[in-house]
Amino acid sequence: MKLRIFVTLKPGVLDPQGRAIHHALGGLGFAGVEDVRAGKLIEMEVADATDDAQIDAMCRQLLANTVIENYRVERA
Amino acid sequence: MKLRIFVTLKPGVLDPQGRAIHHALGGLGFAGVEDVRAGKLIEMEVADATDDAQIDAMCRQLLANTVIENYRVERA
Repeated sequence: MKLRIFVTLKPGVLDPQGRAIHHALGGLGFAGVEDVRAGKLIEMEVADATDDAQIDAMCRQLLANTVIENYRVERA
Repeated sequence: MKLRIFVTLKPGVLDPQGRAIHHALGGLGFAGVEDVRAGKLIEMEVADATDDAQIDAMCRQLLANTVIENYRVERA
């Protein structure tokens, strides 16, 4: 089973990486960019028997810092 | 307009971050993880007038290193 896990900063959490990208896009002459937020995408191939609770535990224990980050799991 | 840009390593390109995650999941006792690949997710808010060519140029010039990375754009 293929999983795609999206880890994003919670709203309100400062995102220096996103700001740097925003600034660089401006420097390259791209107008009209209003906001940029940077996050992580983790693609995993797991055994079909892996259940939701286990996937959730992986996210909470390792993949996302739930104090400042949200995560979303998608099955591909 | 909201964009989500997924940047992933091309197949065959070594992914030390993915390997580290894979190894750490094993260490935490999660069995059945077969492969992990780490990528980037960039969420952008851009002006509605931004066209495909411009978005493509942003990806090629800054967001992705097309020698080793693929990118995919999704409109949300």
